[in-house]
Amino acid sequence: MIPILRTKAALREAVLGWKRVGETLGVVPTMGALHAGHMSLVEAAKADCDRVIVTIFVNPKQFNSASDLENYPRTEVADAEKLAPFAVDAIYAPGPEQIYPEGFATTVSVTGLTEGLCGAHRPGHFDGVTTVVSKLFLQTLADRAYFGEKDYQQLQVVTRMARDLDIPCEVIGCPTVREEDGLALSSRNMLLPPETRAAAPALNRVMRQMAERLLDDESFGPVRAQAEAALREAGFSEVEYLELRAADGLAPLTRPDRPARLLAAAWLGGVRLIDNIAVG
Amino acid sequence: MIPILRTKAALREAVLGWKRVGETLGVVPTMGALHAGHMSLVEAAKADCDRVIVTIFVNPKQFNSASDLENYPRTEVADAEKLAPFAVDAIYAPGPEQIYPEGFATTVSVTGLTEGLCGAHRPGHFDGVTTVVSKLFLQTLADRAYFGEKDYQQLQVVTRMARDLDIPCEVIGCPTVREEDGLALSSRNMLLPPETRAAAPALNRVMRQMAERLLDDESFGPVRAQAEAALREAGFSEVEYLELRAADGLAPLTRPDRPARLLAAAWLGGVRLIDNIAVG
Repeated sequence: MIPILRTKAALREAVLGWKRVGETLGVVPTMGALHAGHMSLVEAAKADCDRVIVTIFVNPKQFNSASDLENYPRTEVADAEKLAPFAVDAIYAPGPEQIYPEGFATTVSVTGLTEGLCGAHRPGHFDGVTTVVSKLFLQTLADRAYFGEKDYQQLQVVTRMARDLDIPCEVIGCPTVREEDGLALSSRNMLLPPETRAAAPALNRVMRQMAERLLDDESFGPVRAQAEAALREAGFSEVEYLELRAADGLAPLTRPDRPARLLAAAWLGGVRLIDNIAVG
Repeated sequence: MIPILRTKAALREAVLGWKRVGETLGVVPTMGALHAGHMSLVEAAKADCDRVIVTIFVNPKQFNSASDLENYPRTEVADAEKLAPFAVDAIYAPGPEQIYPEGFATTVSVTGLTEGLCGAHRPGHFDGVTTVVSKLFLQTLADRAYFGEKDYQQLQVVTRMARDLDIPCEVIGCPTVREEDGLALSSRNMLLPPETRAAAPALNRVMRQMAERLLDDESFGPVRAQAEAALREAGFSEVEYLELRAADGLAPLTRPDRPARLLAAAWLGGVRLIDNIAVG
């Protein structure tokens, strides 16, 4: 059984024991509801580091909707079972008082990268992410932290935050893991009503088509409009954003004239799905 | 000669060398223009820690006035000479690019404690302080950091920030050092026009009288009004604030019915002086 640590004190005791003998530590920060995407992060961490901790904390500060927070899946027993075969060294599953003690008053925020995309549609979301992630980096004293490219903007924001604050933890991005039909793995996929599941891979399929047309030098405006129409046709109720951005720094683009990324958020069956892919 | 480190890389190399052999590190963060107040922090650090670093960085982000930043005294050669007898292990005097590299976009902010007092009169000041101090704690990887009680609100804010972000650095407050006439030592004292210097100790004297009257259970309003009149009489042009606050948490008080602190900021000869004292 993997030990489940509930307090910062227990965490630090374990970590300082490893540090004293010169072992390196990797952390995989999660909100639980683990799937194969998380496991790919665990595998990357195990390959790089002497010790690996998975954190499970559903962070209220990064939810901009009370119902989204309430409905977010919580599956700790199953999560621990899924991690067992990977022999991680500990699960850190703190109570909220370990993360936000009485009188907690500090926010870590990043400008620029957090504007637009998810930042435009989820007010306060990235402040919640950067605040909790800076704390998890510093509570765990990890040498490396593993994040999925599936939350591409988050990966960019967290990388910038750690660099800017000189937190001695290297942020490592890992490729998005997908179902065979192309749907990006996400803890929210389990919230999709069964009758909508077949439509979900349309998001990735439409994005791949869009990327090909942009590489063929078609104009962004019409390509984007047709992609949005195709998503509605497939059953999506709303396209929040569907944008071409510079892969490094997220500057808005209308053509992939440098390393670029297509990023999208769209609603299907009352669930918000996001995805992103490299263009070219 | 004390080595002067100019880059984060040189700093980390020195620090990691000490950490590897289990030595503890104290840091005294300063903006230079060192005086006996700073030296008392250095002495406290030397007494507690195996290694001591003094940082010297005039942090543009914590100045809310361009002229204040421009006029702030910069005396690095004299600072290094003053530190020599204390045998600190290094001075860290980074260029701005070591603290705010290109693309820097992150802010650390604290709510509550930063409102009122200096926070009300210096917009953005405490965000600048908490951002640079979090970076200095993380760049130096110090075990303990020493701050003067003279900047009492800053001491409270920095302590909260370090706790909230789980930065593994203990913040230690040290008593204000004063001239024989009671004037709190400050790098800004050297900016006082000579003809105003004799009036400067009135700030502390008036505050001590005020504290006595509050302990005698006199009403705050009249005591405060008379103190302000006395400061104007002494030559102060403006009293920015003169407040009674809880020593822990800075809640506003009108009587010292728990551990309390009188805090003041006032202008003399074009220079902003601050001071604070325990009440009871």
